[in-house]
Amino acid sequence: MAGHDPHSTHRLTRWHDGGAVAGERCVPEEVPVALTYGRATHAVMMATPLDLADFGMGFSLTEGIIRSPDDMAEMEVLPGPRGIELRMTLADERQEALQHRRRHMAGPVGCGLCGLDSLEATLRPLPLLPPSGRITPAEIRQALLGLSENQALQHATHAVHAAGFWQFDRLALLREDVGRHNALDKLGGALIRNSIDPGAGAAVLTSRVSVEMVQKTAMLGIGILIAVSAPTALAVRQAEACGLTLIARARDASFEVYSHGERVIGLVR
Amino acid sequence: MAGHDPHSTHRLTRWHDGGAVAGERCVPEEVPVALTYGRATHAVMMATPLDLADFGMGFSLTEGIIRSPDDMAEMEVLPGPRGIELRMTLADERQEALQHRRRHMAGPVGCGLCGLDSLEATLRPLPLLPPSGRITPAEIRQALLGLSENQALQHATHAVHAAGFWQFDRLALLREDVGRHNALDKLGGALIRNSIDPGAGAAVLTSRVSVEMVQKTAMLGIGILIAVSAPTALAVRQAEACGLTLIARARDASFEVYSHGERVIGLVR
Repeated sequence: MAGHDPHSTHRLTRWHDGGAVAGERCVPEEVPVALTYGRATHAVMMATPLDLADFGMGFSLTEGIIRSPDDMAEMEVLPGPRGIELRMTLADERQEALQHRRRHMAGPVGCGLCGLDSLEATLRPLPLLPPSGRITPAEIRQALLGLSENQALQHATHAVHAAGFWQFDRLALLREDVGRHNALDKLGGALIRNSIDPGAGAAVLTSRVSVEMVQKTAMLGIGILIAVSAPTALAVRQAEACGLTLIARARDASFEVYSHGERVIGLVR
Repeated sequence: MAGHDPHSTHRLTRWHDGGAVAGERCVPEEVPVALTYGRATHAVMMATPLDLADFGMGFSLTEGIIRSPDDMAEMEVLPGPRGIELRMTLADERQEALQHRRRHMAGPVGCGLCGLDSLEATLRPLPLLPPSGRITPAEIRQALLGLSENQALQHATHAVHAAGFWQFDRLALLREDVGRHNALDKLGGALIRNSIDPGAGAAVLTSRVSVEMVQKTAMLGIGILIAVSAPTALAVRQAEACGLTLIARARDASFEVYSHGERVIGLVR
């Protein structure tokens, strides 16, 4: 990314064993990224300036703005002094749909909805995931191992999240970001851009599982979500409802299955 | 919170030592909270349904919507089937200022700004923090200890963040949330609602420090930020610029000072 490195080195004072020493540390960059469609800003996200074309494609998919790569007519990554514009041009029909959605939502101020309506709009109905490939406990362990071994930015900074895609015999893709949501969006974009079937594998995350992570995974059509850390109650309920296999607290040879254990081979309830 | 507990128990299947056993786990709740001003939604945040009056006050302060508790005329917490409305009524003058700000930002679609202008608006100028109280390395350790000892929801769920306020001799306040941003907003609201001087202490966080955490801390007028985990490069630059003492990777008796070490007693560079 021209002018935007994914990390930089900062001087600091380290206190250890009762004394102070000068030192330095490699820390991850975080850049405002404006996602624009038809030249109007849809959102500004703080993100790691890596794999931004994947980010734009994945964000557009998980937000339901596009339904396939064909809906994206053009994408430009435009670095500037204040951040990066991810300038996207949709196919005419999708641009009209987006404008209609915005007009429909636009009101006197802000998002314009009253409290009740805005809450109604938050938990959007998710696609019901079809039965997809199954996974073994041994593979879950290998997927986690593959993830931790290949987090290049994490190894440099110890401060970023990763999302990987386990293709049942290997970790096919891995994307990193300071934000866990962004890492998953980038993974989704990379899957589509590389024509990988999302039903033929599992997403593997370094993070906790809030409801947005379940929503994104379902929107991407991935049937299995494996996370190192814990889920929220709402994430569990949404995973149950949309047919997602939610595996969390997955570390070493242990893991917990919160929903749809039928995709885990050898798991007897 | 009527109808909204901060956690719930879920059944699961635990895989361990090569075998599956049925078990259960206490996981944190996550509820859509619509923050409304004058009955129009400003934002919907996924949050832990605890201390929501603190959340409303703190969010309004860190977003610059109010400048003091007097600007908030009324606040109601209204639980519903889809989530919770945090219904806030501003003093007339502030409500007009908010509507003016929104009109000014409103354009044809979305936030209406082009990519360049929206990036410009993201990194808003922060107040320059005045010189405030200083802290010793021993206190930093005590603050961290106080934080980890008093995280009630974390002890039940192992899946939430906390923000505390160290008042130089004791941990005066602690707030928890599934979101680290929300935890800090709740802390800010609690400080103001309890008339505690933000300059006479330090914020202590369980989380990483992204730029938004620095922005919120500065907006609250807190001069020292101590975090268990690492900062981003942008967070370090913003802390340097606004006069915030940023202490990160603070664990046991070690910590790293990234900016404005003059507030740490005994730190020689």
